[in-house]
Amino acid sequence: MKVLVTGGAGFIGSNLVLSLIHNGHTVTVIDNLSTGFRRHLSEFESTGALHLIVGDLRNAECALKEVSNVDVVVHLAANADIRFGWNHPREDTQQNLIVTQNVLEAMRCNNVKRLVFASTGSVYNNTAIIPTPETSATSRQHSLYGASKIAAEALISAYAEAGYVQATIFRLVSVLGPHYSHGHVFDFVKQLHNNPKELLVLGNGNQRKSYIHVVDCVSAIESCLEVSPTFQVYNLGIDDYCTIRDSANWITSEMGVSPSINTGTDDFGWVGDLPFVYLDTSSIRSTGWRTTKTIEQSVRATVRWLLEHDWILSERN
Amino acid sequence: MKVLVTGGAGFIGSNLVLSLIHNGHTVTVIDNLSTGFRRHLSEFESTGALHLIVGDLRNAECALKEVSNVDVVVHLAANADIRFGWNHPREDTQQNLIVTQNVLEAMRCNNVKRLVFASTGSVYNNTAIIPTPETSATSRQHSLYGASKIAAEALISAYAEAGYVQATIFRLVSVLGPHYSHGHVFDFVKQLHNNPKELLVLGNGNQRKSYIHVVDCVSAIESCLEVSPTFQVYNLGIDDYCTIRDSANWITSEMGVSPSINTGTDDFGWVGDLPFVYLDTSSIRSTGWRTTKTIEQSVRATVRWLLEHDWILSERN
Repeated sequence: MKVLVTGGAGFIGSNLVLSLIHNGHTVTVIDNLSTGFRRHLSEFESTGALHLIVGDLRNAECALKEVSNVDVVVHLAANADIRFGWNHPREDTQQNLIVTQNVLEAMRCNNVKRLVFASTGSVYNNTAIIPTPETSATSRQHSLYGASKIAAEALISAYAEAGYVQATIFRLVSVLGPHYSHGHVFDFVKQLHNNPKELLVLGNGNQRKSYIHVVDCVSAIESCLEVSPTFQVYNLGIDDYCTIRDSANWITSEMGVSPSINTGTDDFGWVGDLPFVYLDTSSIRSTGWRTTKTIEQSVRATVRWLLEHDWILSERN
Repeated sequence: MKVLVTGGAGFIGSNLVLSLIHNGHTVTVIDNLSTGFRRHLSEFESTGALHLIVGDLRNAECALKEVSNVDVVVHLAANADIRFGWNHPREDTQQNLIVTQNVLEAMRCNNVKRLVFASTGSVYNNTAIIPTPETSATSRQHSLYGASKIAAEALISAYAEAGYVQATIFRLVSVLGPHYSHGHVFDFVKQLHNNPKELLVLGNGNQRKSYIHVVDCVSAIESCLEVSPTFQVYNLGIDDYCTIRDSANWITSEMGVSPSINTGTDDFGWVGDLPFVYLDTSSIRSTGWRTTKTIEQSVRATVRWLLEHDWILSERN
């Protein structure tokens, strides 16, 4: 198939691209390289299997030109910075909603039907329903990021209802694995890489979170490239969770360090952080998809990758 | 109070403005006059009670300048054209979501906290739950209009959660009364005004809808100008419904005409039309608010107003 991956130089995107090429697909990537890394894709840039376009999808003309002559669009390009949304309050709307409409309009105008979209488990906020099913999402959002993702879902559903696209939406928990460059495991490894004697944990460390390995995320996306529901929303997570404290222990063990661990007192790490994320994944599992890595395996693999590619620790604040 | 009404020259907006001034408030209106009428406000333009700004809130600078020094913002400005959304697929996003963010940012920057926002019962699509409670809304939308309104609700809730605004959101059924210029009663009166012998009804006429009178809509808005919940969503409708056929009979009776009525065969009037709209209004009624007009009274009053102000029949297609 001819697959267009927006944000294809990013963490999930680049892993997807590598897998798609490995499986014989032809891939076009559009990425503005604002948070992605060209070097994630460098091994394929000289081959005919990958066409990399450095472009910004906030530009509707760019989208219209490039979203053509493909079988499916996997739209991953986004501002994923949930924590610092209020530093730039229009960014989520622009990068996550307006860009999604630019992609949708380009698909409509080019008669490209099949869309896979990455949404977020953050749309559930701190719901009381654990594990959280897809039906728990409401319009009440606690972050600009969540608001922009639920808005993008609504827009996609309107295009799907009108027959312009067939869409699968994944609401993701946090993802770990190679090329990871954003989130608490990154922060912890970076801290300990700089000073192995001390680890500062935001919140009391009892926050409970689910994580999946990026290979499991990629396999879910690939499993639905060819199926064509009108509109389908799947939670994408693991049937398990850990505490931030568990995660810190695995990280320090993998790094072979024994820092003093300084935790806060709140049951959240920052305003908008969710104390408990655990999604009901029975819907995606009913398709036959399964995770292949435990949370501990994912955390440890991520630590090893970061240490083997420690250039990335200095690339991100 | 000092009240800013966006879209204050429109149907609901101008009725609200007249009532606010009558009740002693000072009112600023921002309206781009794209669908509103300056003459709705003409009796107050020369008084000190009304300050009318002809401006476009898609311009963020306009919003920032004018949303200051007020106690409350009633944000009604919107593209309300649900039926023809696909003729201009970016308009709902721009006029209903981006404009809402411009208003929210202007409020945040000017430290104006209190917001009342007009959303829509269309966000429920053709739900099976009748009467429909507020909890029935999901991100799955059937129109660009519904998608833009649920997106605006989500954005407002994120601003509310962060403490920047305190918001009351009304999900409205169709509204009738003086200054009405959009919807099936308008269409029917216009048809019969041109040709009293024939009435064309879109759909089979059995569509069931709720309508409230604009005075009841205005009284609900006014009842929450001073209360300050962090975030509250109310359905705003009537505890009743009628069929389009009922409505056609009241209209022809009020006009004193006996046309042949030609109906279609579908149980919807147009793609995206909802066969049954009946919202659960127990939440807003628990505050003491009540409707004062029946649906029949609202339809008949609207017909009389349109006939007494038939200039408006030629102003709208």
